[in-house]
Amino acid sequence: MRILVLGADGYLGWPTALHLSAAGHEIGVLDNLARRGYDRELGVESLVPIESFEDRISAWREISGLNLESYVGDLTDAAFTTGAVRDFRPDAIVHFAEQRAAPYSMIDQAHAVYTQTNNVVGTLNLLYAIAEVDPDIHLVKLGTMGEYGTPNIDIEEGWLEITHNGRTDRMLYPKKPGSFYHLSKVHDSNNIEFACRVWGLRATDLNQGIVYGQSTDQTAQDARLATRFDYDAVFGTVLNRFVIQAVLGRPLTVYGDGSQTRGMIEIRDTVECIRLACENPAAVGEFRVFNQMTESFRIEEMAKTVAEVYPGDVEVEHLENPRVEQEEHYYNVVHSGLPDLGLKPHLLSNTLIESLFPIVAQYTGRVDLAALLPNVRWRGALKPQGE
Amino acid sequence: MRILVLGADGYLGWPTALHLSAAGHEIGVLDNLARRGYDRELGVESLVPIESFEDRISAWREISGLNLESYVGDLTDAAFTTGAVRDFRPDAIVHFAEQRAAPYSMIDQAHAVYTQTNNVVGTLNLLYAIAEVDPDIHLVKLGTMGEYGTPNIDIEEGWLEITHNGRTDRMLYPKKPGSFYHLSKVHDSNNIEFACRVWGLRATDLNQGIVYGQSTDQTAQDARLATRFDYDAVFGTVLNRFVIQAVLGRPLTVYGDGSQTRGMIEIRDTVECIRLACENPAAVGEFRVFNQMTESFRIEEMAKTVAEVYPGDVEVEHLENPRVEQEEHYYNVVHSGLPDLGLKPHLLSNTLIESLFPIVAQYTGRVDLAALLPNVRWRGALKPQGE
Repeated sequence: MRILVLGADGYLGWPTALHLSAAGHEIGVLDNLARRGYDRELGVESLVPIESFEDRISAWREISGLNLESYVGDLTDAAFTTGAVRDFRPDAIVHFAEQRAAPYSMIDQAHAVYTQTNNVVGTLNLLYAIAEVDPDIHLVKLGTMGEYGTPNIDIEEGWLEITHNGRTDRMLYPKKPGSFYHLSKVHDSNNIEFACRVWGLRATDLNQGIVYGQSTDQTAQDARLATRFDYDAVFGTVLNRFVIQAVLGRPLTVYGDGSQTRGMIEIRDTVECIRLACENPAAVGEFRVFNQMTESFRIEEMAKTVAEVYPGDVEVEHLENPRVEQEEHYYNVVHSGLPDLGLKPHLLSNTLIESLFPIVAQYTGRVDLAALLPNVRWRGALKPQGE
Repeated sequence: MRILVLGADGYLGWPTALHLSAAGHEIGVLDNLARRGYDRELGVESLVPIESFEDRISAWREISGLNLESYVGDLTDAAFTTGAVRDFRPDAIVHFAEQRAAPYSMIDQAHAVYTQTNNVVGTLNLLYAIAEVDPDIHLVKLGTMGEYGTPNIDIEEGWLEITHNGRTDRMLYPKKPGSFYHLSKVHDSNNIEFACRVWGLRATDLNQGIVYGQSTDQTAQDARLATRFDYDAVFGTVLNRFVIQAVLGRPLTVYGDGSQTRGMIEIRDTVECIRLACENPAAVGEFRVFNQMTESFRIEEMAKTVAEVYPGDVEVEHLENPRVEQEEHYYNVVHSGLPDLGLKPHLLSNTLIESLFPIVAQYTGRVDLAALLPNVRWRGALKPQGE
């Protein structure tokens, strides 16, 4: 099938494009290169060097003989978005093209507004483009497990049957997102559900857990195909950051007491989930939600696992939590939708973590130690009165 | 107390400012005059002529001896918003400053994006302004009953205690909004709840029913104090439109079979609800929700009531429904929060409707008949393939 991957220059967009291409699909890749701009703004970079968007596309052509049709532009530009959809005419659109870091959205007012505008307007334009070009195009949208927060009841896959005063309805699962970034994804989910209900579009919303790992069958084929590996406190996700800290001989920085539990997924499972969602589309008018995660861990557990597996001395350090979040809490997530479509998860094992150590060791010279420490505080917007 | 009214040049913002001023509060009025711009864009105008923002403020000073401190600017301009909040230093902020018509948001992509950007970014800037200037300022935000849609269970006031698999949590009531405008209000509610939870702000979200009526104790004192009275299919609300159609001898246009049920509130109750919410603030960190409506009616019932009361011949005409909405549905709304604070509702009675007839009769020469008919279709974004 023809699949257009939005945000195809990013950490997960790039390996997803290659995985779908290798699986025999015709792939278009679209990006506004914003992720590289955040690096410049924050003065950090991917631990693993990455090629330019153009060069990695050429490298894939050289290595696999397969073409990726490229579109460089911004989804908030409606004419560009509709034009790209009309030109590529996909069967499915995979949408990774959003600002995806919670801390980035919490830097200040301007970053909160940028994150919500970029994400919500980009997705709105995409919904209009699909409705105009071909309402049958299946939208596969990346959401996050962080949309749910940590409710005291089981987390279902997007919908919940609620009985109240003796009457029952199937309703969108009530969310409790933890940052303006997470909120932007909730706004998106609500807008997409409406477009399915009112226009009969078909969409799959993938609420993804925290991704770890850096290598897939395709990116491993050549250094020029590598994807990003972020370790900074703004864009680096927790398990990747622990691995890097271990190799550098730095303490693993756990926020608060570390009893927070989060859903996780390995990068090879992420790309496979996207393939499964594309090849098994939602029905016309259906807003289908999957929880794209394979296991849950307490943050402290992850730190301990990395510390035990790493063949050197590793300390675990507890920092004052820069976020506002519940620490001790209930967490039980239904995530059977993707296994039902055929996902065979790669579960977190010592072997998998170990495979990251040599990748990190190769590039320790590129690390900026200061970037590892959190510098965005959730209560940053609150200044004492009179200041 | 000091109260800053945002959107104070609009249909409800203006009478609210006067009502709060007459009640002895110090009032600031802020507007970007966008509502007058929509009139120019759509080629329609208020049935009742209104003075300029400047002139109505002067008229109130002349008549009451009371001052309204005026700020003209746009909430999407963060520096302006923070500056106004810092300058007026209110105890409460009443926020009406949003694009408020569902059909306007459904015109096309540009109007959907404008509505969500304007509403969401304006409110985000306001949250940051409050956090920066004084987190103790009470935000009184206008939402809409349309955020809930028409669920098959009772509609509670913003929150719902949910029991699922033997465990219980108090969660935001799951919403099913019916347009990109209604969605913008849901996005706002989610952003505001987060700011209360994480920053300890205090907010009251008022999910308002459809407002009818045009006159309050203050606006009735002088023609220069009149508020808008909209009859066009984009900004005119249903009961006001029926009254105007009756006086003009035109058929009352019911969308679909008219069995849709909606919550309603009279304009004098609206301004009183705002006063009660301001004078009884939410607690620190509380996201408090009231359903600001007093009665529910089927649309067909409203049409019949107007037809019966009007002393001439009136036909009721059923048009193909331009919206996508459920017609026959369950509708039972809890709305005890505001009566508990002291609201004594003006219920819809023949007398109240009759009082609107002479207002309309005075200005029939200003009516553009074409503007009465719906010209925005919810499925407008869907064009047949190949077009």
